[in-house]
Amino acid sequence: MLKAGIIGATGYTGIELVKLLRGHPAAEIGWLTSESYAGQRLSDVFPAPWDDPLLPLEAAPLEAADVVFLCLPHAASMPAVAAVRAAGVKAIDLSADFRLHDASVYQRWYNHPQSQPALLAESVYGLPELHRTEIAAASLVANPGCYATSVILGLWPLAHAGWLTGTVIADSKSGVSGAGRKPSLTTSFVEANENLSPYNIGYAHRHIAEMEQELHAAKDTEQAAGWHLVFSPHLLPVNRGILSTMYVSLPDGVDEAAVRGTYDAAFTGEPFVHVLPAGRLATLQHAVNTNRCAIGLTFVPGQSTLIVTSAIDNLLKGASGQAVQNMNVMFGLDETSGLPQ
Amino acid sequence: MLKAGIIGATGYTGIELVKLLRGHPAAEIGWLTSESYAGQRLSDVFPAPWDDPLLPLEAAPLEAADVVFLCLPHAASMPAVAAVRAAGVKAIDLSADFRLHDASVYQRWYNHPQSQPALLAESVYGLPELHRTEIAAASLVANPGCYATSVILGLWPLAHAGWLTGTVIADSKSGVSGAGRKPSLTTSFVEANENLSPYNIGYAHRHIAEMEQELHAAKDTEQAAGWHLVFSPHLLPVNRGILSTMYVSLPDGVDEAAVRGTYDAAFTGEPFVHVLPAGRLATLQHAVNTNRCAIGLTFVPGQSTLIVTSAIDNLLKGASGQAVQNMNVMFGLDETSGLPQ
Amino acid sequence: MLKAGIIGATGYTGIELVKLLRGHPAAEIGWLTSESYAGQRLSDVFPAPWDDPLLPLEAAPLEAADVVFLCLPHAASMPAVAAVRAAGVKAIDLSADFRLHDASVYQRWYNHPQSQPALLAESVYGLPELHRTEIAAASLVANPGCYATSVILGLWPLAHAGWLTGTVIADSKSGVSGAGRKPSLTTSFVEANENLSPYNIGYAHRHIAEMEQELHAAKDTEQAAGWHLVFSPHLLPVNRGILSTMYVSLPDGVDEAAVRGTYDAAFTGEPFVHVLPAGRLATLQHAVNTNRCAIGLTFVPGQSTLIVTSAIDNLLKGASGQAVQNMNVMFGLDETSGLPQ
Amino acid sequence: MLKAGIIGATGYTGIELVKLLRGHPAAEIGWLTSESYAGQRLSDVFPAPWDDPLLPLEAAPLEAADVVFLCLPHAASMPAVAAVRAAGVKAIDLSADFRLHDASVYQRWYNHPQSQPALLAESVYGLPELHRTEIAAASLVANPGCYATSVILGLWPLAHAGWLTGTVIADSKSGVSGAGRKPSLTTSFVEANENLSPYNIGYAHRHIAEMEQELHAAKDTEQAAGWHLVFSPHLLPVNRGILSTMYVSLPDGVDEAAVRGTYDAAFTGEPFVHVLPAGRLATLQHAVNTNRCAIGLTFVPGQSTLIVTSAIDNLLKGASGQAVQNMNVMFGLDETSGLPQ
Repeated sequence: MLKAGIIGATGYTGIELVKLLRGHPAAEIGWLTSESYAGQRLSDVFPAPWDDPLLPLEAAPLEAADVVFLCLPHAASMPAVAAVRAAGVKAIDLSADFRLHDASVYQRWYNHPQSQPALLAESVYGLPELHRTEIAAASLVANPGCYATSVILGLWPLAHAGWLTGTVIADSKSGVSGAGRKPSLTTSFVEANENLSPYNIGYAHRHIAEMEQELHAAKDTEQAAGWHLVFSPHLLPVNRGILSTMYVSLPDGVDEAAVRGTYDAAFTGEPFVHVLPAGRLATLQHAVNTNRCAIGLTFVPGQSTLIVTSAIDNLLKGASGQAVQNMNVMFGLDETSGLPQ
Repeated sequence: MLKAGIIGATGYTGIELVKLLRGHPAAEIGWLTSESYAGQRLSDVFPAPWDDPLLPLEAAPLEAADVVFLCLPHAASMPAVAAVRAAGVKAIDLSADFRLHDASVYQRWYNHPQSQPALLAESVYGLPELHRTEIAAASLVANPGCYATSVILGLWPLAHAGWLTGTVIADSKSGVSGAGRKPSLTTSFVEANENLSPYNIGYAHRHIAEMEQELHAAKDTEQAAGWHLVFSPHLLPVNRGILSTMYVSLPDGVDEAAVRGTYDAAFTGEPFVHVLPAGRLATLQHAVNTNRCAIGLTFVPGQSTLIVTSAIDNLLKGASGQAVQNMNVMFGLDETSGLPQ
Repeated sequence: MLKAGIIGATGYTGIELVKLLRGHPAAEIGWLTSESYAGQRLSDVFPAPWDDPLLPLEAAPLEAADVVFLCLPHAASMPAVAAVRAAGVKAIDLSADFRLHDASVYQRWYNHPQSQPALLAESVYGLPELHRTEIAAASLVANPGCYATSVILGLWPLAHAGWLTGTVIADSKSGVSGAGRKPSLTTSFVEANENLSPYNIGYAHRHIAEMEQELHAAKDTEQAAGWHLVFSPHLLPVNRGILSTMYVSLPDGVDEAAVRGTYDAAFTGEPFVHVLPAGRLATLQHAVNTNRCAIGLTFVPGQSTLIVTSAIDNLLKGASGQAVQNMNVMFGLDETSGLPQ
Repeated sequence: MLKAGIIGATGYTGIELVKLLRGHPAAEIGWLTSESYAGQRLSDVFPAPWDDPLLPLEAAPLEAADVVFLCLPHAASMPAVAAVRAAGVKAIDLSADFRLHDASVYQRWYNHPQSQPALLAESVYGLPELHRTEIAAASLVANPGCYATSVILGLWPLAHAGWLTGTVIADSKSGVSGAGRKPSLTTSFVEANENLSPYNIGYAHRHIAEMEQELHAAKDTEQAAGWHLVFSPHLLPVNRGILSTMYVSLPDGVDEAAVRGTYDAAFTGEPFVHVLPAGRLATLQHAVNTNRCAIGLTFVPGQSTLIVTSAIDNLLKGASGQAVQNMNVMFGLDETSGLPQ
């Protein structure tokens, strides 16, 4: 059995990792840390009969783990990843700290310097559908952002084919767990329930950086300048799930058969990508409580507009499920082990 | 006191009208009809201590009313409106039957002939912000659709200025009451809750017809062909409210100040349109349980993209509230009477 | 027009008062205070186009108001009420500070001394159905607690008849707005949604003190010792509303007709109490968004058990609506003015 | 691998069984039937990429299964169970048809004759915590009702000790999936959301019959007449989960230590019963998406009242999870196989 450590186990992604690892046939929890609840037990902060102690980060026996998952805020994750790697342990970082290959892009979007350039050089962007081979060889995987996962998977076949042009719009809606477990007025029940709130719309949300990085790299030849992204997140009154409704203007001559062909080519055989048949749209319920990304393709009659609907569970394929998928790839396990299909 | 009859009083728009009229200082309920519950009392089908009898439509004393609200399905409303008008009573029709001036457009979208061309000729599209003068003189007002209200109010200043071009995208999300009170699997609690479902996306939803009619007519000169609409509704797990997030590519030379100027020109003094200050986005909670339409304007930096967020309560400004607003205009009352601001 | 000041206007009860007073035909808002948002405007903290300035409490022109509503936490309200009364202005206090006639009971439940005994002596418990005459003459009204309103109204006719015996159980469920607007983990969307949490069950919640005070006083002769209350609140995933399901063991010889008779005697003519006909149960939807208390009476066949279901909107009849009802009584207005029926 | 057939696979309990069996290490789906959707595939009626054909019941190859789960309405299940048993296949029936040992009790509560007395004689009530040995030997298991599971597990240690007396009150709240997948007005989103509705309260709900059967049998000596049950279900606006809050008057001399002792004796070692430590209350989130029953014990100070809070997921421990648990016991598998802990 692989022994896994989790740093930051009492946020929503940490708790989700605990649940997944407890049901995993080839991995188990080694130790857990929590900044807020160090000294207590997991059952004190989460309604389950699991008595794992919560350690302060300093007390975590890093080297006793085969793999460490890090669920820390950005910037805070850099030194912790460095410590894990210094202990010779493989790391899967759920923060944004090692997702962006270009440190200046990280600086621009996160307003913080990238202090671990050597680790950045070895890190792999952990979207298995795009980077499976590199992930299998990696010691440090940067787990993608939740919105980014839904948008990148939904658009990648088009980007790869060179069919993104002009303004590409992603209108995304996320469940409240995406905002983390720390209480705030915005995520209070009475404020979020019976409401729908756009926020950071246009070109302001940090996940844009990784969307651009991955989609620009999708095609060999340089064509990045040919399109630009507008991304509009909305806070949705559900616990979990992201639906991205994306609007793309197809180039002349690219028809429905061609588009479906490129999605099939990209995703056939992928265990966690479900391209829906014609006439079906992705909904949250296609994805919630599973590690799947469901993708629907709608062609607007008489227009060149393609609408891509892409749904994931933000805590599974958008975070902890994808992290376990990466672990499975890194350790040569069945990629679907321990993951709800 | 004006006496109002309501035909179809036991659906969500009918019940909302009952509530509004019971609190109206200058109008009162004359009689109610219900197809499903005729012979019962309102308190039998709705949890309130209101014992109004529910008549079959045939038994309604049409001429005893000063105004009749019709809350019937499309096609069913045509003969009922004809009967009301034949009795010499003013009618406010909440169905789609008299919204579209061109009978062939109605035929195309609703797959049903327009059997009352004479009444169609006298009907007025009941969006007071656009047609207040005609409404004041009208005997038959066609109350707009809920999605249509949010999209038309959100885009009208741009249409009027001639600034709509290319593909205009309206990504709309509606609460479940918009689907009516008749039980269906889609609108069942377990199916809709913790879910978000796009439906009829692209160019398929019937409200597109009235959006195009009103926005094409917004400018004197012919420029309708210059843009086309993509409209994507989503079923949202809330009881009430519509948020439309709209993406517009502004023409060269049209800047933020110009856009804000045209919205101010269009809506200053409007009691029920609330153009939000810069930096604010419309959310459902700006509008729910009020008759307001809240509009936010977001300019994407470095791009020509304008994002308009427009929120209404689908049962108030999107249906029954707007119907009462129309009644107030038709009878020379204070336009805000009896309406939650 | 009466001028009303609101102290603590930016919590849920304060905002609800603003909404009610803006629609009131005989009262208007004079000034608003807010500790957290002093210096801002109401539209900065609440999604409505209302630009009222938010004053610090020290800056409130107390004497410019005819009536002041206080929406402060317990203990904090005592000196503020004293200041209002010292300015010669009538006060309606929504905190618990003046609800309990016996200062030692207040001390026991709230763990804080009653520092205003003279004001306590003049205060009236503001449940109009029980104390209308005293309220009409009062200068200081202590507005009841939300749970207390639902339980007291539901049980008062039985208490008055002397029919409460043994253990009386109130199993109550409240919407999340009852916990106030201050963010906490318990009231976060993800924690409260898709959940139901009992808390402080048995004999631990502070509202028990006022329930006992009012129900013990309901009968002239001493019989208080004859029964005791078990009260179990639950946090319910809705924005607003309280449903109390209460279990009473009827004395021998008290039958359904007698019980219905005593409820009719108590509440016939009450504008805001709705005793449901036989076979109907109170639900949240009987009460939410109204100032009503709906009461259902269910007799268990073959047993002496009576189940009383009692529903209110915790922000209306359970707080701000009742406060306006009290204002109406205090100033000789129509008791229903400005209140949703 | 065990092959399982599911009769009635497209209701909520059927779909939940499909999900559980797809993740089960020692069982797999053999065939599925559906009355409503026969001829379609599972992916046509449920948002998952599972292409299992849906057979009409007549076409199901009964004998090709090792075990058949029946998810039919009561009365409809009797002949289907008979057919399965006639084919020599073990059956787990999720309907009420074989839960009540006394056919006259079934007739009284379900208003339908028990037409399979021989099968009734061999059936075992499928609550493993009470009847594990009989289940292991059974060919026909009657899977308990959802409310019944929460109430029986919550009260069984008291019943076994002979400590139930007088009126025992169970105030239960259930998520909407408990009402099944067939659309109705009561379970429509707009009606159930932001609402809480008691129904069939007192002594009217059919699950009372099995609660009484199991709790009366809990003690060897005859003491059934010594107490009676009041059971009040409420429809709760969540997808899944049942919380029962139960009020018991303890006999003189039975103290907290004794009560805790009897619960420990009953449930220590049970993999799916979680008796919470002192001071903790069961909430839905203790149980939802798991096969656990969480039980909290609250002693009211100064009174003899014990409040038992008992939470389950109505689709897991309350239906399909328990059915899989029964299958595991019947086939000698690890009892927790394939079940979320």
